[in-house]
Amino acid sequence: MRTISLTTDFGWDDWFVGMMKGVILNLASGADIIDLTHGIPAGDIRTGAFALMAGYRFFPRHTVHVAIVDPGVGSARGAVVVETGDYTFVAPDNGVLSWALRREKIKSIHWLENKKYFLLPISRTFHGRDIFAPVAAQLSKGLACRKLGSEAVDYARLPWTNPKVNREEIKGEVIYLDRFGNAITNVDAPLLSARGPAELRIFSAGKPLCAVGDFYQSVPDGKPIAVIGSSGYLEIAVNGGSAAKQLGLRVGDSISVRAR
Amino acid sequence: MRTISLTTDFGWDDWFVGMMKGVILNLASGADIIDLTHGIPAGDIRTGAFALMAGYRFFPRHTVHVAIVDPGVGSARGAVVVETGDYTFVAPDNGVLSWALRREKIKSIHWLENKKYFLLPISRTFHGRDIFAPVAAQLSKGLACRKLGSEAVDYARLPWTNPKVNREEIKGEVIYLDRFGNAITNVDAPLLSARGPAELRIFSAGKPLCAVGDFYQSVPDGKPIAVIGSSGYLEIAVNGGSAAKQLGLRVGDSISVRAR
Amino acid sequence: MRTISLTTDFGWDDWFVGMMKGVILNLASGADIIDLTHGIPAGDIRTGAFALMAGYRFFPRHTVHVAIVDPGVGSARGAVVVETGDYTFVAPDNGVLSWALRREKIKSIHWLENKKYFLLPISRTFHGRDIFAPVAAQLSKGLACRKLGSEAVDYARLPWTNPKVNREEIKGEVIYLDRFGNAITNVDAPLLSARGPAELRIFSAGKPLCAVGDFYQSVPDGKPIAVIGSSGYLEIAVNGGSAAKQLGLRVGDSISVRAR
Repeated sequence: MRTISLTTDFGWDDWFVGMMKGVILNLASGADIIDLTHGIPAGDIRTGAFALMAGYRFFPRHTVHVAIVDPGVGSARGAVVVETGDYTFVAPDNGVLSWALRREKIKSIHWLENKKYFLLPISRTFHGRDIFAPVAAQLSKGLACRKLGSEAVDYARLPWTNPKVNREEIKGEVIYLDRFGNAITNVDAPLLSARGPAELRIFSAGKPLCAVGDFYQSVPDGKPIAVIGSSGYLEIAVNGGSAAKQLGLRVGDSISVRAR
Repeated sequence: MRTISLTTDFGWDDWFVGMMKGVILNLASGADIIDLTHGIPAGDIRTGAFALMAGYRFFPRHTVHVAIVDPGVGSARGAVVVETGDYTFVAPDNGVLSWALRREKIKSIHWLENKKYFLLPISRTFHGRDIFAPVAAQLSKGLACRKLGSEAVDYARLPWTNPKVNREEIKGEVIYLDRFGNAITNVDAPLLSARGPAELRIFSAGKPLCAVGDFYQSVPDGKPIAVIGSSGYLEIAVNGGSAAKQLGLRVGDSISVRAR
Repeated sequence: MRTISLTTDFGWDDWFVGMMKGVILNLASGADIIDLTHGIPAGDIRTGAFALMAGYRFFPRHTVHVAIVDPGVGSARGAVVVETGDYTFVAPDNGVLSWALRREKIKSIHWLENKKYFLLPISRTFHGRDIFAPVAAQLSKGLACRKLGSEAVDYARLPWTNPKVNREEIKGEVIYLDRFGNAITNVDAPLLSARGPAELRIFSAGKPLCAVGDFYQSVPDGKPIAVIGSSGYLEIAVNGGSAAKQLGLRVGDSISVRAR
């Protein structure tokens, strides 16, 4: 039986995630269900897409990845299942899959249409429970994607904001603040290493913010440092503290990387 | 082996839930333990009862549902196991089971008395670990409820606040605010559909609040709308926003539903 | 297969814990992974050590306990695996294991050195995913600790703050505030019972705070009471309320226990 991963904006305080798991176990007794995260800010498709991209490839081959950030639930937006070389992805067709799928070889895309595999009656507010959970359960037991509905030409794509690169600098932006207050940017490791062995520095609003280093404790306690984080992107941190709080960084803030 | 579901007010920040799971696995290796929710506000038996009622029936048949919202822990309050046609429920006898059980056919009610099935010594503050977890583990392995203690005549019941219905309106109240800021009311779908096909509107403090619609995006972004939510109750929402914040709704607030 | 427990400061909002579980399942399909807690305050090694000490012994024998509170990640700090009579512990060597290990009979201590068991390339910020998760997966499948690296002479130890005891009083301090607002102190049950059957009272800043009782509801609603909590330590509570809020208690606050 395949592992099922869940990425949602349902949070941990309500009973929505628990209900989904009840539905899955009802159809796929003994299924391994792993929460990738339920902490995506409500309705924030971009952050959901980033979390899934950061995490999906660490799961066992053939994992069924379910991603639900779904402000359009109940409306006419479609829902898709996408099969790649290594995984199966299920989600509302609103772009939440698109950054993970950039790295995958697409084998098929189908609409979720066949009500035979849904939990009826379908509510207008909780397709996680009524559509995605039962479909994921069936996929974990080996159901072929084509049984779920007709073939789709494509899936919805979110534009990825690429940093602007010139000779002098890399201009990027903050795309996520984690619980430690680290500010993850859209500047990835290859971009950075293309700068060669020069000592690099981060600037924000024209002022120097910190150096680029190797790990948090390479600066004294309370001092800022930028490192390549575990998702492969440059992140701005404060050793033993919160860069978000101490430096006032927010999602969307511009930063630039220049030689020292 | 039967699935075990957990509904508590223990939250996610401490190690209480983790300890309970350790105890369960110690007695029932490989058990499927699903968190329905641990986000019930501390000591709030009514919200615990509502969450359990909303969620329990989506779990596999024979699931052992454990519900612990237990301000009287350590006092003389009893604890019960209730067997119904489809499930087994375990909880302090303070009403937390009563709304889920309204819909079930009761087969037996027993007190939890037999210390043989408890973790000794029993603490005075954490029966979740010392009584409910080991009992749930044993039940998941098939222990008969009557082994746990003497038969009880009844279980504690919480009064459910019924909406007041007259020709002109349905007067209900807000009973839960979810993480999206949706305000779930005690007005259920049958009550609403009994109003016939009229267009309905929600009023709060005499002023019109929003229309009743089918799904969140049936109004523009930032606008309020009331829909039948996934638990079968009318909920007041703001498309792409938080009704709790934007409309200032709180648990206990009166609302009414009238023809437009 | 052995159970794996996780104790971290990664929180629930990001995808760090989910990634670790993906890595574990990738290597040890079907593993039982239990979250003891992920709510340790960021970088707070002492609280991590306390949570692990409070919880580890409720897990099945041979459980692999993974504890990651790791402000020195990426630096030269070592990482260890410690085998005891009943359990295996894996952690950065910064003291987070030391209070749990005080109660265990140590059988072996080894460094985590053998890259064959790591996820390569190893990031400089997330050894939870790249070192501890794959190592835990292998240990759950029975890998011998000595395969992981060379023997270590000892593990890092955190000093435990013992209460000061004299004829008149026990002077302790608050070491943890739980989600209910209960203030757990470092005064343990044996210390208290050594005072004999006298009625005891808690003082804070020279003023009487509350009596020592048996359970929360032994005082009226809203009144403070100190009880022996589920971890075996004296905790100051407010029946139906939050001692932290109502009495303004904080971690580090001094309290004393005196005869009435």
